Amino acid sequence: MTIWPAVISGDGTFRVGLLGHGTVGSAFAALLPAQAARIERITGLRPELSGILTRQRGSFEEILGRSDLIVELMGGLQPAGDYVLEAMRAGRHVVTANKQLLSRHGEELWEVARAQGVQLRFEAAVAGVVPVIRVIQESLAGARIDRVHGIVNGTTNFILTEMDRTGGTFAEALAEAQRRGYAEADPSEDVDGRDAAAKMAILARLAFETPVHIDQVRYEGIEHIQPDDLEYARELGLGLKLIGTAERIDDGLSVRVHPAFLYPGHPLASIGGPFNAVTVESETITEITMSGPGAGGPQTASAVLGDVISAMIPPASTPAAAHRLRIIEDVASSFYLYLEVADEPGVLAQVAQVLAGHGVSVRSVVQKGLGEQARLVMVVHGVLESRFRDAMEEIAGLQVLRAPPRAIRVLEEEFE
Amino acid sequence: MTIWPAVISGDGTFRVGLLGHGTVGSAFAALLPAQAARIERITGLRPELSGILTRQRGSFEEILGRSDLIVELMGGLQPAGDYVLEAMRAGRHVVTANKQLLSRHGEELWEVARAQGVQLRFEAAVAGVVPVIRVIQESLAGARIDRVHGIVNGTTNFILTEMDRTGGTFAEALAEAQRRGYAEADPSEDVDGRDAAAKMAILARLAFETPVHIDQVRYEGIEHIQPDDLEYARELGLGLKLIGTAERIDDGLSVRVHPAFLYPGHPLASIGGPFNAVTVESETITEITMSGPGAGGPQTASAVLGDVISAMIPPASTPAAAHRLRIIEDVASSFYLYLEVADEPGVLAQVAQVLAGHGVSVRSVVQKGLGEQARLVMVVHGVLESRFRDAMEEIAGLQVLRAPPRAIRVLEEEFE
Repeated sequence: MTIWPAVISGDGTFRVGLLGHGTVGSAFAALLPAQAARIERITGLRPELSGILTRQRGSFEEILGRSDLIVELMGGLQPAGDYVLEAMRAGRHVVTANKQLLSRHGEELWEVARAQGVQLRFEAAVAGVVPVIRVIQESLAGARIDRVHGIVNGTTNFILTEMDRTGGTFAEALAEAQRRGYAEADPSEDVDGRDAAAKMAILARLAFETPVHIDQVRYEGIEHIQPDDLEYARELGLGLKLIGTAERIDDGLSVRVHPAFLYPGHPLASIGGPFNAVTVESETITEITMSGPGAGGPQTASAVLGDVISAMIPPASTPAAAHRLRIIEDVASSFYLYLEVADEPGVLAQVAQVLAGHGVSVRSVVQKGLGEQARLVMVVHGVLESRFRDAMEEIAGLQVLRAPPRAIRVLEEEFE
Repeated sequence: MTIWPAVISGDGTFRVGLLGHGTVGSAFAALLPAQAARIERITGLRPELSGILTRQRGSFEEILGRSDLIVELMGGLQPAGDYVLEAMRAGRHVVTANKQLLSRHGEELWEVARAQGVQLRFEAAVAGVVPVIRVIQESLAGARIDRVHGIVNGTTNFILTEMDRTGGTFAEALAEAQRRGYAEADPSEDVDGRDAAAKMAILARLAFETPVHIDQVRYEGIEHIQPDDLEYARELGLGLKLIGTAERIDDGLSVRVHPAFLYPGHPLASIGGPFNAVTVESETITEITMSGPGAGGPQTASAVLGDVISAMIPPASTPAAAHRLRIIEDVASSFYLYLEVADEPGVLAQVAQVLAGHGVSVRSVVQKGLGEQARLVMVVHGVLESRFRDAMEEIAGLQVLRAPPRAIRVLEEEFE
């Protein structure tokens, strides 16, 4: 099923061609020679950088011609996608961190890898140095996975941690994240959930052996989160995270990204700052949680290097998708509900009646403030999102509401 | 460096011989056929159980003759050790969960595996389903590891969680652990730290490429922990765990197991009940933490099966030890100190003077109770254990002490 790389120079070296020289690329270019002696001990081959393609200089074809393996750290769909395909068709292993490419064109790329008998490794595309790809593909190869939950975007996790710590707004926390280098000048892909959606598409593909395209992942970001939400939720014992979920539901698969409150016992509840973490659940294994830095040049370069070493030793390639689970849009969730209401008798009764009419059952409720400050803060039990949305629409129309209702999902503990 | 297994029947099957049929063995015998179709998809080979050796029936030689791979789940040094050696010498891959065997005879076994070109895999020997062996050996192959901290014994973690939750004694929590199946009838190897010491010897060997024998691991258990210790420590914001540590100190290596208090931000602080967790620290990666069930038949069998699948696909074997780091006995640690003292002026001054005389500096101190209940509860900054022991001896001789002093290590956060 797998073969040794087509090209190995006979002199005991293993030549690594590097595409891209940004933060991760330059960290990788420094790490490879620093670890060359260790790698030779492990693999019997001495790795060396055979060339670096930057925006300014270098020719892909020349680098390919003198490389046993290509490391693609350019990002973006093109020309990265063509280079990855061309390298594999020429019999070279490829290691990439390109989540956009894999979440859109993964099936095509994995098929070429299998057909060519080369490896396409991509640990660094999801959750930085957290070895979730390897663990799902190899350690858990014999387990039927039921659910994956992940904090897979460090920028948003830092912002939410900061909002919780300081009581400040989203904009203030974002500015602090940018100041510290945890958010880019244009942070929209991170804060609106798209980055996490690409990563969850990849994780879902591997965990459930079903093709998943990023366009099939529903996502919400954290731009609308208010300091109030964090404050009241804390009184209920809840902490807020941007959670990616991929789960088997009957014969279907739901993949989604949204802010969610976690109870304190949840394995992801204690993950703070720019860290990433992923929990994999299966009846056989109960659950495994992995956490670590989700970004950073040296950290991500280290994940890339782990893949390079594995490619030097014979390999496992991503098997063809075995299933075509139906992608499910409407799933059940528990919700936190924040209502600014008139301070008059019967308000709770009206709200509760609407909820009951849609089959939404209340788990806990707190009434706060008087007069213009009156609020109802509720947590409701799990209910289909479509039903909850209908209830919210009806509540929004009630005379007693002083502002549009706000809702955030609550992740219940699966294993007590 | 590695070759395909010497024996593969030509008919597309991969024959797995199982030694041992206890909790994990019988779970494995059920899991393998249940996952056979998935495994065939991944590897191209259909796995089947070729025989099971129990105490009552079966012949090792016959099973070996008709197996491509041997799974050893008998435990104990003999005959398990002979069987593992014989299987590898006959060209068979071996998967084992035998921590006793590996922590005593690992170097010999790994050398035979390398010489024979077969794989010896042992994920299930440490931390159950938590994939720490694979992550250290493969994902982190390109990182220089500085420190490994682990909660690698689920029995003691359950007992400490239970003591903390109920305020009960060690004996009461142990009885509850036995009632729930988390502790054996004879729990001594778990509660005295020996089980964790064997696992830390294996982790240290892999992380630091230095031979480590279990006899080189210093260990302390949790039998002497008092409910008072947990209660006062909670006021200081500390939680107690049985922690295994392997760390590089200058050109040496310290491997040890002892109870230790953790500050709430530590990645191992939130690991409760019978779970295991391991944190790997390296300058390059910052840190990775992995957690999951540390025992249980199906869980451990799943880790074994992950190894079997990896052995069916070509492989990495454990490289020869590259270093012979000096094993260090005396390391620096922070301590919690509990003193029952006379309720009279100048007691704190006397104790503080003794500590200062040995270079021990106080981080925080709480005076509690009056008269016969008077106590000093202190946390001191990091100090060489030998110095601290000398200070403790002198304090024990003070007239103002009403009982022998008690001390427990405190793990400081390395990365803030």
